[in-house]
Amino acid sequence: MGATTAATASGWLDQIRFDDRGLVTVVAQDAGSGRVLMVAWADREAVAETVATKRAVYWSRSRKRIWRKGEESGHFQAVSEVRLDCDGDVVLYRVRPEGGVACHTGRESCFYRRLEDGQWVVTDKMLDSPEGPSPR
Amino acid sequence: MGATTAATASGWLDQIRFDDRGLVTVVAQDAGSGRVLMVAWADREAVAETVATKRAVYWSRSRKRIWRKGEESGHFQAVSEVRLDCDGDVVLYRVRPEGGVACHTGRESCFYRRLEDGQWVVTDKMLDSPEGPSPR
Repeated sequence: MGATTAATASGWLDQIRFDDRGLVTVVAQDAGSGRVLMVAWADREAVAETVATKRAVYWSRSRKRIWRKGEESGHFQAVSEVRLDCDGDVVLYRVRPEGGVACHTGRESCFYRRLEDGQWVVTDKMLDSPEGPSPR
Repeated sequence: MGATTAATASGWLDQIRFDDRGLVTVVAQDAGSGRVLMVAWADREAVAETVATKRAVYWSRSRKRIWRKGEESGHFQAVSEVRLDCDGDVVLYRVRPEGGVACHTGRESCFYRRLEDGQWVVTDKMLDSPEGPSPR
């Protein structure tokens, strides 16, 4: 991007459009299977730490603090790629989830319900015990 | 889902947690390649019409109205699957994008920028002419 110069080390962060809460929507996708795992939020610090550590970091709205994914569950997410959408207000993390679990319910993906004939049908088994309240 | 009975035809809609604007976040994913194409919003009517017509419908915040994807661009999205996340506030549309374009910039995906060495690098060619302002 032409406007980014080498001199502004965090110029790429300035190109993200954080909302009035200072947050950006993040989609986490499994880099292997391509499955969409979860949608959460991140503040500037969380995105910066994600890129620096190559581990997914979010902002927990329920806990009102930085949320290093896996800090309690052990289900870290190794981040192989970060993408930004056209409007600059959604970030995509491509990840490899440790333990194969992304959802706080103990399932691979948060999108474990599929609409079938007017009913949400659970398609995923629990691979681990639930974590308790959603940390999002 | 035990709480849904056959008698409540739109019980599945009641299980979606629309926010105080009446909107839910929607992720559209290519059902073939698995690529994440775009993130937008939908109101209750948009989700209902998506399911009824099997074509992706959103809510345009900039236009403040229902947004039938492709109504102007021709880039409709045939919806093969709808999923709901654990907290009930994000919906996933699995789609086949007509013309292979989802982004208003004329690219396959809105996530056409990848972070490389502190710069957002454009990875996608324009496959069609841009639509003008983002309809999101």
